Amino acid sequence: MGLRALGETAFIERDITDADVMAFAEVTGDKNPVHVDEEYAKKSIFGRRIAHGAMTMSLISRVIAEKLPGRGSIYRSQACLFMRPVYIGDKIRAVVTVIEVTPKALPAPTMNVLAAKYRLRTECFNQNGEKVFDGEAEVLK
Amino acid sequence: MGLRALGETAFIERDITDADVMAFAEVTGDKNPVHVDEEYAKKSIFGRRIAHGAMTMSLISRVIAEKLPGRGSIYRSQACLFMRPVYIGDKIRAVVTVIEVTPKALPAPTMNVLAAKYRLRTECFNQNGEKVFDGEAEVLK
Repeated sequence: MGLRALGETAFIERDITDADVMAFAEVTGDKNPVHVDEEYAKKSIFGRRIAHGAMTMSLISRVIAEKLPGRGSIYRSQACLFMRPVYIGDKIRAVVTVIEVTPKALPAPTMNVLAAKYRLRTECFNQNGEKVFDGEAEVLK
Repeated sequence: MGLRALGETAFIERDITDADVMAFAEVTGDKNPVHVDEEYAKKSIFGRRIAHGAMTMSLISRVIAEKLPGRGSIYRSQACLFMRPVYIGDKIRAVVTVIEVTPKALPAPTMNVLAAKYRLRTECFNQNGEKVFDGEAEVLK
């Protein structure tokens, strides 16, 4: 697939389940009680358990890897602004939009040559259309 | 526990195993072949499979949740610079350092009141002392 165009966009949607959050806590070791302890979370400012910020960011990472720029993309940077909590039961839409394309000289020949540096706007929205995550990524592909 | 001091630091170390990377791919759905496909990764610029950037970031999230500022911390933002690949078999040290403390007025009474906004330097190093991740986080606690 060739270069992606300025303004091109792609998204995925995912239901954030209790099982997802517990599995994410397990694999990362991040057992912050706002994620895994119902009683604690009830008394926190959130009122109930929320998903990990890194989990929300991983939805962006997945859009990048699967769709835009796609397979084999290399993540160089990601700015993450966690704007609102993501609750268990939310349906999150992760959206990536190309905001800059810089063609690159090809490095030493490999099967997966790098062809451009992309700057991407990266956003997530919940089922109410509220923005829960905003940021920018730099990716090579 | 009271306010954390400027310059205070904490870390965790984790061995990045094949099982970790496959589990992370499964729970996040991010199956970028540089993470999960040995043949593809061999022909990529990395030469072998690497861990997800979001997985490296989740080590920082874990230090924040477990140690500094600690239990119940709320993640507001994270800048991520993925400086070098993290390979399967690497031992990663994730380090958090307080670079700014801003005491906050307490919000409506809850059991877990917020007491300060912290700006943190967030870094990860591999077993050779090479920096693989750099960035900053903003956290409420």
